[in-house]
This record gives sequence, structure tokens and C-alpha cells, in this order.
Amino acid sequence: MLRGAGSDITLESVVEARRRIEGAVLRTPLLLSPGLSAELRARVLLKCENLQHVGAFKARGACNAVFHLTPEEASAGVATHSSGNHAAALARAAALRGIAAHVVMPRNSSEPKLEAVRRFGIEPILCEPTAEARQAKADEVVAETGATLIHPYDDPRVIAGQGTVGLEIDEQAQELDAVIVPVGGGGLLSGCLAALKACRPRLAVYGAEPEWADDAYRSLRTGMIQMPTRYDSIADGLRTCLGKLTFPIIQRLVDDILLADEDSIRAATRLMAQRARVVAEPSGAVPLACLMRHRDRFEGKTVALVVSGGNFDVARMAEW
Amino acid sequence: MLRGAGSDITLESVVEARRRIEGAVLRTPLLLSPGLSAELRARVLLKCENLQHVGAFKARGACNAVFHLTPEEASAGVATHSSGNHAAALARAAALRGIAAHVVMPRNSSEPKLEAVRRFGIEPILCEPTAEARQAKADEVVAETGATLIHPYDDPRVIAGQGTVGLEIDEQAQELDAVIVPVGGGGLLSGCLAALKACRPRLAVYGAEPEWADDAYRSLRTGMIQMPTRYDSIADGLRTCLGKLTFPIIQRLVDDILLADEDSIRAATRLMAQRARVVAEPSGAVPLACLMRHRDRFEGKTVALVVSGGNFDVARMAEW
Repeated sequence: MLRGAGSDITLESVVEARRRIEGAVLRTPLLLSPGLSAELRARVLLKCENLQHVGAFKARGACNAVFHLTPEEASAGVATHSSGNHAAALARAAALRGIAAHVVMPRNSSEPKLEAVRRFGIEPILCEPTAEARQAKADEVVAETGATLIHPYDDPRVIAGQGTVGLEIDEQAQELDAVIVPVGGGGLLSGCLAALKACRPRLAVYGAEPEWADDAYRSLRTGMIQMPTRYDSIADGLRTCLGKLTFPIIQRLVDDILLADEDSIRAATRLMAQRARVVAEPSGAVPLACLMRHRDRFEGKTVALVVSGGNFDVARMAEW
Repeated sequence: MLRGAGSDITLESVVEARRRIEGAVLRTPLLLSPGLSAELRARVLLKCENLQHVGAFKARGACNAVFHLTPEEASAGVATHSSGNHAAALARAAALRGIAAHVVMPRNSSEPKLEAVRRFGIEPILCEPTAEARQAKADEVVAETGATLIHPYDDPRVIAGQGTVGLEIDEQAQELDAVIVPVGGGGLLSGCLAALKACRPRLAVYGAEPEWADDAYRSLRTGMIQMPTRYDSIADGLRTCLGKLTFPIIQRLVDDILLADEDSIRAATRLMAQRARVVAEPSGAVPLACLMRHRDRFEGKTVALVVSGGNFDVARMAEW
């Protein structure tokens, strides 16, 4: 049992989430990358959530949360505010259940991000691009519609859904020394920790975050949730702080948080395309950036990197 | 038995090849791409040979040919001339067997291609960048060393090795209506045909080639091996003509050869990165380009595309 302060994320809840979302999400492959393995003198496995529906692990948590609603709750729809992969994931999950989704997005969202939501028949509700305006608009929508707000990470159903990534790694890997997971709000990391530490207590599990958004690193060291000090890392999925639910799980179970600078994140995104031949968004390449930085620590080991998403225009690499 | 004019590629020889190269090559995943499936209104599966050792299916045929040599033959090493993925694949196969490889490459080969060979401890032998100079240099090396020349495609051991791609598709796919395979010299296509048509006689198997290198298309229609009329397609792996062994197999078993123009090959390479989140070299994206062009024919069907390789600098897409 992995019950802790304020959390009810157990292996059982992850197994239950997996049963609930089966058929609605892909069991993504855990791939050996010969190129990265040679480059880093380690056995490098990639858990390819970039190949997941909507191109990111977010499909898992969103499906689990939406499928978990009672029929009454579901009839009023769901709502969220997000500028990233959670928005598309929630739109898709709602479409699968046949219910309404109200997705509040900043007016300056990129066309591909808006398009990713529209693909599921949902027109984003635009608002001013400030955190306050987003929250205010989302509150307004919830008050008007009675929709259930689905937080992108600080929700036990979302965390359990993301934890199915860890469950699959446990099933797919034979020998395994370490897993490195990107950490933004901590939904993916805390879910994976709940699953992996229950199945393999001696496995090392690390969080990976940008130096420019080192709030999880500092939170772990100070024992209190810290805020990022800047919001401009190229790893745009990892700019958020930990949540009230995710922090205690991470605090209790994680082996350490590793940091990567911006140059190494760009280099890792490039290496992912050149040597592993998969498209990772910079946030999804942060584990590789950390592995590159700490290569001595992992030499000769079998390491699984969670490639959390692949929504990235690779042509941008030409500017780097 | 699929014996035909000049060919001895049977399902048995492919199964034997698979046993011979097991452990030395990866069983690459056959992935459902939700993004491409939505885009093309078909169930699109990708056989990801871009994730293979050396980033291309060539690893299979090269291993089968090298492992097939008698100890006497092997002791004199192997040789080839190639500017592409076969060079790296042969270097790797020779390194695995611990024998010498003499790889003749044009002096103007790109640094990444030279590096891909050097990675296996083999220094390429440079020659002038003409077909005659390459052949002359390779003949010279063979005369001097007694090495066995391993042709990139017109060799039964190579064809049988490439055919293991087809064998795996048969095992990995349940329902399947069609397979589309890139065709350059025809080693991959003829090997896949030998395996797939033996296992699933009613499965449609198509070759895919650029309009600018439509020699296989014309060969099929004229009943004689035709030469390409130009050598500048962006799909640089598909610029060669069919071989004496590959042509009769293709002639007998293929359903048709589909063509793709250069713009659609670029669009398919981009779509592969954006919607399927994998890196395909343009040659490996030609089946997708053909599917896009013939989308009516494949609507509602389950189609496997062989993504033959992923050795491509994605930053180049910025120029397109």
C-alpha cells in the first residue's frame, strides 16, 4: 500500500485505471534504441508515449478521469484550461464518452494546438493569455454548465491514469536498473512511482526537469512546494509547479530529481530524431538530456526513458 | 514453393534467414498510427525499420549474407560498394562476425554516411563518385583480398534476409488488407513478397516508388528490366534499377507498383514526423506518399506501410 499524506494512489488504483482505459489508449512500445545505447554506453530503452493517442501520455489520465465520472456528472460535461496536450486529451476522452468538453485556451495558442482540440469536434473557448484569466474563464464555464473541472495533474484519477505508463514499463522490461521520467506538475512521475515502486521496490526512479524550471528539485530539497522562477524553458510542458497530491508521492518515493540545461535539452531532442529516429517534444527529451549529463552514473546500466510526448515541429531544429 | 526464373527465394529460405539473424537484428514494432489513420480514413500500421539497427532494414540482409559465409569465405572478409545504408549494415554485420569488411564509397559521400560505417571500426575506401569508378575499385579490392562481394540487393541471401520484414508483418498483424513496400533495387519488395504471398495469398502487396525513378513501374509493364531515366529523386534509396533476381519475383507476385511525385514524398516525410512522430527518410516515406495519392482505394482498409529507413536530417524540412 502506498498511501501517504493526502494521497490515495495505490498500485490497485493504477491497475483499475488500466482496466478502465483499455482499448481507449495504446499500449505504447518500450523500444531498445541501438543508436542511443552505443552513444551513451548504456542499454537505453524508450517508453514511446509520443506514439500515444494525441501524441502524449495525457491521453491516459484524461480517459481515466472522464470514464470515472458518474452518469450524472458526465451528463454535465467536463472542463479544463490548458494550452498543452491535456486540452486535446480531454477533448478526445469526452468525445469517446460522447459528452461535452469545455476547453479554455489562451487566445495566443498556436494553430496546431487549437487544431488538436478541434479535431475532436470541440471549439476551444479563447481567453486572455494570463493564468488569472484562464482560471476565471474556466470557473465561469463550470458555474454556467455544471461541468466537472478536470485538473491536468493534481487529480487522483489523472495520476492513476498516467501511472499506467509505469505498469507497462514493469511488464515490458526484463532487466531494468533505472527509469527517468519528465516532471512538470508531477502527474506522470507520481503515477509511475506508485506503480513502479510497488512492483519493483529496488528500481531507481528519477524525475527529470529543466534547470530553468527546477521547482521540483527545490521542492524536494526544501520539503515544500516551490514555484518555478522563470517560465521560458524550451521544455514547455514542464514549466508548472508540483501539486498538493503529486508532491507527497514524489517526496516519499523518488530517488532524485535530475536537471538539464537548455542546450542539452535541444541536443537531446536532436539526438532523439537522429539516433533513435523518433520525434520527441523538448519536454519528452529531458530524460535523455539528464542521461547525457549523468552518463557516468548510468554507464553499463539498463535505463528506460519516458518519452512523454511528440508534439513538436522538427523543422524548428534548423534554427538551433 | 515460390521458385521462379532464376530465383530460389522460398518461404523456407526466409524462415531460415530469420533463424540465422535472430539476436543480431531487432524485431521492429508494427505500430498503429492514430494520427495517420484519422488523416487517411484507413487503419494505418507502420512497420518501423527506421528503428532497426543502422536505422534501416538493410541490417537484415547484410547479416544473413555475412552469417551465411563458410569459415573459409569469411576469413577473407566481405566487400561492397554503396553510398547508402547497405554500407553501414555490411560494416556492422562483418564486425559482429569479427571479419574484415572493405567498403568502397564515393569521395563526396556525406559525413554522416561515412561516420555510420566508421562507427563499426571500418575506414571507408574512397573512390571517384562515378558508377564505373565504384565498380572498378570494388573489383580491385576483391582481386587483392579475396573478399566476397555482397551485392546490396541482387543476392539470394540478401533478399531472404530482407524478407524477414514480411514474415514479421504476417505475425504481428491480425486483420490486414494491403502492404505497401518501397522499391529501389527490389531486395526488400521481393523478399517481402516471397514471405507474405506464401503466408497470406490473398493479401495485396504493392511496391512504392518515386515518379522520378519509375523504372520498376515501367519494368512491370514492359516485361523487361528498365533503367531509371533520372537520378535526382529526393528518395535517394530508390534510384536504382531492379536486379536479375528481384525482377522475376516482383513480376510474378506483386499486385502493382504505385508512384509518388516529389512534392507528395516531401509531404509524406513531414506527415510521418508530425502525425506519426517517427523519423522516416524520404525513401521510407514513399509508401505513405502513395497511400495519400490513392486514398480512395484504401479508405476503410487496414494498410501496413514499410518505413524502410530513418537516416535523415529532419532539420532539412525547414527548407521545404
